[in-house]
Amino acid sequence: MLLSALLTSVGINLGLCFLYFTLFSILKRQPGNVYVYAPRLVAEGKAQQENDFNLEKLLPSVNWVKRAWQVTEDELLTTAGFDAVVLMRIIIFSLRVFSFAAVVGVFVLLPLNYMGNQLNFDFIDLSTKSLESFSVSNVDDGSSRLWIHFGAVYIFTVFVCYLLYREYKSLSSKRIEYFLSSKPQPHQFTVLVRGIPVSSARSISDTVDGFFSECYPSMYLSHSIVRSTSKIKALVKYGDKVHKKLTSLKSSNQSEEKFTRSGFLGLFGKRVNMVDHYENKLENIEENVRTEQSSIIGKEVAAAFVCFKTRFTTATALHIRQAVNPTEWVTEPAPHPKDVYWPFFSTSFIRIWISNIVVIMACILLTIMFLIPVLIVQGLANLKQLEMWFPFLKGILSITFISEVITGYLPSFILQQFLSFVPPIMIMLSSMQGYIALSQIQKSACIKVLIFTIWNIFFANVLSGSALYRANIILEPKKIPEILAIAVPGQASFFISYVVTSGWTKTAENLFRLNPMVFSYIKRKFLGYSADDFAVPSVSYHSQIPRMLFFGLLGITYFFLAPLILPFIVIYYCLAYIIYRNQLLNLYAPKYESGGKFWPIVHDSTIFSLILMHVIAIGIFILKKLPLASSLIAPLPVITFLFNSYCHRRFLPMFQSYSAESLIKKDRDEQADRSMNEFRDKLTSAYEDPNLMPVQYSSSYQSLRSPLLGSSQA
Amino acid sequence: MLLSALLTSVGINLGLCFLYFTLFSILKRQPGNVYVYAPRLVAEGKAQQENDFNLEKLLPSVNWVKRAWQVTEDELLTTAGFDAVVLMRIIIFSLRVFSFAAVVGVFVLLPLNYMGNQLNFDFIDLSTKSLESFSVSNVDDGSSRLWIHFGAVYIFTVFVCYLLYREYKSLSSKRIEYFLSSKPQPHQFTVLVRGIPVSSARSISDTVDGFFSECYPSMYLSHSIVRSTSKIKALVKYGDKVHKKLTSLKSSNQSEEKFTRSGFLGLFGKRVNMVDHYENKLENIEENVRTEQSSIIGKEVAAAFVCFKTRFTTATALHIRQAVNPTEWVTEPAPHPKDVYWPFFSTSFIRIWISNIVVIMACILLTIMFLIPVLIVQGLANLKQLEMWFPFLKGILSITFISEVITGYLPSFILQQFLSFVPPIMIMLSSMQGYIALSQIQKSACIKVLIFTIWNIFFANVLSGSALYRANIILEPKKIPEILAIAVPGQASFFISYVVTSGWTKTAENLFRLNPMVFSYIKRKFLGYSADDFAVPSVSYHSQIPRMLFFGLLGITYFFLAPLILPFIVIYYCLAYIIYRNQLLNLYAPKYESGGKFWPIVHDSTIFSLILMHVIAIGIFILKKLPLASSLIAPLPVITFLFNSYCHRRFLPMFQSYSAESLIKKDRDEQADRSMNEFRDKLTSAYEDPNLMPVQYSSSYQSLRSPLLGSSQA
Repeated sequence: MLLSALLTSVGINLGLCFLYFTLFSILKRQPGNVYVYAPRLVAEGKAQQENDFNLEKLLPSVNWVKRAWQVTEDELLTTAGFDAVVLMRIIIFSLRVFSFAAVVGVFVLLPLNYMGNQLNFDFIDLSTKSLESFSVSNVDDGSSRLWIHFGAVYIFTVFVCYLLYREYKSLSSKRIEYFLSSKPQPHQFTVLVRGIPVSSARSISDTVDGFFSECYPSMYLSHSIVRSTSKIKALVKYGDKVHKKLTSLKSSNQSEEKFTRSGFLGLFGKRVNMVDHYENKLENIEENVRTEQSSIIGKEVAAAFVCFKTRFTTATALHIRQAVNPTEWVTEPAPHPKDVYWPFFSTSFIRIWISNIVVIMACILLTIMFLIPVLIVQGLANLKQLEMWFPFLKGILSITFISEVITGYLPSFILQQFLSFVPPIMIMLSSMQGYIALSQIQKSACIKVLIFTIWNIFFANVLSGSALYRANIILEPKKIPEILAIAVPGQASFFISYVVTSGWTKTAENLFRLNPMVFSYIKRKFLGYSADDFAVPSVSYHSQIPRMLFFGLLGITYFFLAPLILPFIVIYYCLAYIIYRNQLLNLYAPKYESGGKFWPIVHDSTIFSLILMHVIAIGIFILKKLPLASSLIAPLPVITFLFNSYCHRRFLPMFQSYSAESLIKKDRDEQADRSMNEFRDKLTSAYEDPNLMPVQYSSSYQSLRSPLLGSSQA
Repeated sequence: MLLSALLTSVGINLGLCFLYFTLFSILKRQPGNVYVYAPRLVAEGKAQQENDFNLEKLLPSVNWVKRAWQVTEDELLTTAGFDAVVLMRIIIFSLRVFSFAAVVGVFVLLPLNYMGNQLNFDFIDLSTKSLESFSVSNVDDGSSRLWIHFGAVYIFTVFVCYLLYREYKSLSSKRIEYFLSSKPQPHQFTVLVRGIPVSSARSISDTVDGFFSECYPSMYLSHSIVRSTSKIKALVKYGDKVHKKLTSLKSSNQSEEKFTRSGFLGLFGKRVNMVDHYENKLENIEENVRTEQSSIIGKEVAAAFVCFKTRFTTATALHIRQAVNPTEWVTEPAPHPKDVYWPFFSTSFIRIWISNIVVIMACILLTIMFLIPVLIVQGLANLKQLEMWFPFLKGILSITFISEVITGYLPSFILQQFLSFVPPIMIMLSSMQGYIALSQIQKSACIKVLIFTIWNIFFANVLSGSALYRANIILEPKKIPEILAIAVPGQASFFISYVVTSGWTKTAENLFRLNPMVFSYIKRKFLGYSADDFAVPSVSYHSQIPRMLFFGLLGITYFFLAPLILPFIVIYYCLAYIIYRNQLLNLYAPKYESGGKFWPIVHDSTIFSLILMHVIAIGIFILKKLPLASSLIAPLPVITFLFNSYCHRRFLPMFQSYSAESLIKKDRDEQADRSMNEFRDKLTSAYEDPNLMPVQYSSSYQSLRSPLLGSSQA
């Protein structure tokens, strides 16, 4: 890719970012848009809704940047939860890493690369010069300057590992603190039990009671049997919708709207009073729900939520195998009642296991299918190939600007569009794996999306772009470093363009919320929706975290190969820092709290990036005929791996479960607390299926159906 | 290998076996030999020692076979423990598998193979005919007879899996039964804690007390701090030796022996009364031990045995992470006090981890070094190569008998000799890995020896013998089935000879106890040792089980390739059945009880053998130009793998720990038992280091040093 093509891409995206920022600064202050830009504040009743219009509001303001900047981590913790803190920590950690990398890269390595003569470019015309002259490929073979690259790799690795260690340590102790300061939560006292042995003589409920009062006589509290309520759920959902329409209809003043015709699309037939119509419908639904509910009481599934009096007993029930037969009475941590989600709930471990195999197969298939867009994208980047395929395009492609857009902007834009389908697909696949909580599904999807992105965006592009793509690279482990060393530096400009498109513009779009903005406008103006219909969104960690981590991977691998990418990455993280802070404060409400379980993914991904960098470095030094440096790099991946395995041993268990020490301390602290009795009373009904509560479409209906779904802190 | 060479080898070994049997039948009835052949009965005081000699005793008797045959499994369980039952179950399981295999192989597959014409042998002279005419290689390419082999593979796999499932199920429930019926054991109430945080303000003992009385106030009983007592241990051992000598000296009647000279080797210098000399020495040692003991009290290691009141609390302390920092207060199951063994005890996880890496490296090195004997052996089997290397041997090698011994008997004999060094080396390596119990060390060594045997005896022989040995076979996974299919059938005769040498003769030698017999004779006759010096041996599971499993692997892989091996394997297991029963009753005393933890190794090894057979079958059907059969075999390894993973899920946890249900039941059963208080009092001192007990070389000395080391049942 030529420098000019890259500049075109950067220009287009910079323009888009600027546009989004300006529009956001203006539109966010317009009446009505508060539901789009600060639904969280509206839901909490904190938004000032000024409906009067004045001209001053049309001027863009950057007050929001100041506000987002000033928020402390503690404020973030209380308002947005621990997961949000982890998200911000990822950004801050990356900013630290890449600020250091950018300083070293741009001021030390870049000039060194540029001074080399390996690639023999014309020194006069910078614009047509390939970007490769800034990369390590331009350094002369066997040059002693390469030792500076060598040193940079070592220093950078040590620096990143130090930061990783510090973050892991700080976050793990913060997680314990957060747990110790949290209020009692239902899921801290509850386990989910699957594989309850079914006998014809006793009901499942009696079996559960019998087993746990036998094993934990003083500590067993209660249980709720799981029932398959998908049919009632659909009915209740429909009822809610009708009830909402009815309410809005009743409150609306236009009597005209209250009538419709009973025939096709409301165009023919006799006039019907809409209020009567909906009320009849609602009664019907209520009736149906009641019949279903009474019939379902018998339909017990062999699974139950079991509540205990203390956290320590809950942990005991979790960690010790309960029954002699390991496939019976299988316990796992219960999610927060709000977090429970099981479209594919299953009690038998064989079904869970088979669906796992199916999901793995589906992921592999998806990865293979995704090679098609990747190959198209790489075809665009090689303009000559495109001309060969479609000769009639020759005329258009000879216009400089268009050819620059096509080679510079379009490839990463198309890839970005295809990639946006991946997170929803992965969420669907993860939910099929039999997880019982949204948080677990999102974490699993996050890992899937990350692996998918690294393989399909990094490796597939690198290897297909250099016509070296062969599936059998895995079968020749010795050649991997050299193949990567040849292929990776050549793709630097493509990835710079990718950072700009997928990083800058996508993040700015996230701020401006293009789609919700447009939909909300259409809904309000043409479909007569009221403000209540705009739900408060939650952070989609499974798409945001993999993107951040992928840029981290790009930055780390290209750090000494082509340092030109680093400033772009730093700018991306700066944008992300401000924008996510603003969004976490105004836009997103946490749906659940995983207690920072995303951090280990970040750690592992960074370690993988470091080791990938080392492998490429080994290849580069072989290619550059500096075999000594190549052998001296070899211990680095081993040391990094050992460091990682130390961290796993030292910190990972703290993210998986709480220790006996903390649990006992927390239990003891609450012993004297009188509100605990009240909490325990509520606990018994916390995991009752809300769909089994009596349905009554009156004003009190909403409050009836959610007994203990208060705060969602972990 | 020619049939005649194989027959020579079988003949030699058959002769040896017969010799050993006869000698055993005669010698076991001679006075004095009871210490060699039934030391266990002597130790238990059950052996009738008839010292009068009569001629009848010189006639071989087979009464012992009858006695060994009649023992029931329950008797075995009470006398030799659960591990012995598992050992016998391995043999019975293998007997069942290979009886079935032998019937199918010899009566169905063997005639089929023999009727083929692929190898075009001369039909007249059987003696010079290669054994390959009995193998699947002789079946014509593309012959429809191969479908019978195909069916046999399927039926055999189903049969083996059914037996595996049945055994796993029966043994796992037997294990629970055994646990439920066992008497309270110290290690059931104890955990070993490593990584106790050291502070200068408090002693380690106080820290342990503080922590556990805080966390388990009602259930914590006591603890014993671990101390590094290797120096005292050596002193005490030396003292024991001297004390023994003194006692025998005092009881001996020959006054001559009580004097020696003080000079070089007792030849010069003035005459000294030996009794005085030893008594002085003993006093010195006692003094030294006392000084060391008083100085060591402060030398605490940051590890302790912690005892609890109930088994359930012990399990809780084991399974829940104790401290916030996962590298502190690390718990693991305590071994039985008799089983404790830690020449390389370490409290820091980093040292354990590093020594693990070192041990893995050492194992790999050993495996590579072992290729040298393997290559020598394969050189012997190829007589022509040998003649090329050493032309002067041509004369000798032309004698038929000698060439038959060299190609038939010698290779497997040499391999057998080299292989006998492996188990002790593996025990040493395993003990360096930081295990704290003999049982753990033996289990780990058992796995190491098994992998080593399979790789170095099976794969190295197969691949080097057919000149296809390449380290990069692993890098070409697609070619593995074909390479194995070419190489494996050719080695059938070598492995038959190996079964005969390493199986038959070695097992018969095990019965006759050649080395202990000779040593005991020399010691008694020439060195004047008394009978007390002959310790009761324990079963060396780490060398016996891998051998049995390796014959299982041979039998399973050669089942349809060269069924001729099967009768030899069946005979081996028959021999083993009778001999091990006899030895378990008379010879071995269990040193510890692992509770059947060796069975999962047997299961995994059998599954591996089955999958190896499938892979070879795929290769064979490709070679034999029956691609349809080859593709239809492909699902079989997948199904076997799934079966294995089901068994792992269903039974393996039962071999790893006991369930809450059983633990609570056992605790409750003992609640009413008054002897429990007494047991608990003893428990507190069970893990006191015996080397720290007061030393006094009087008659009561022995009993002073072993407070609770009674029975060793788990």
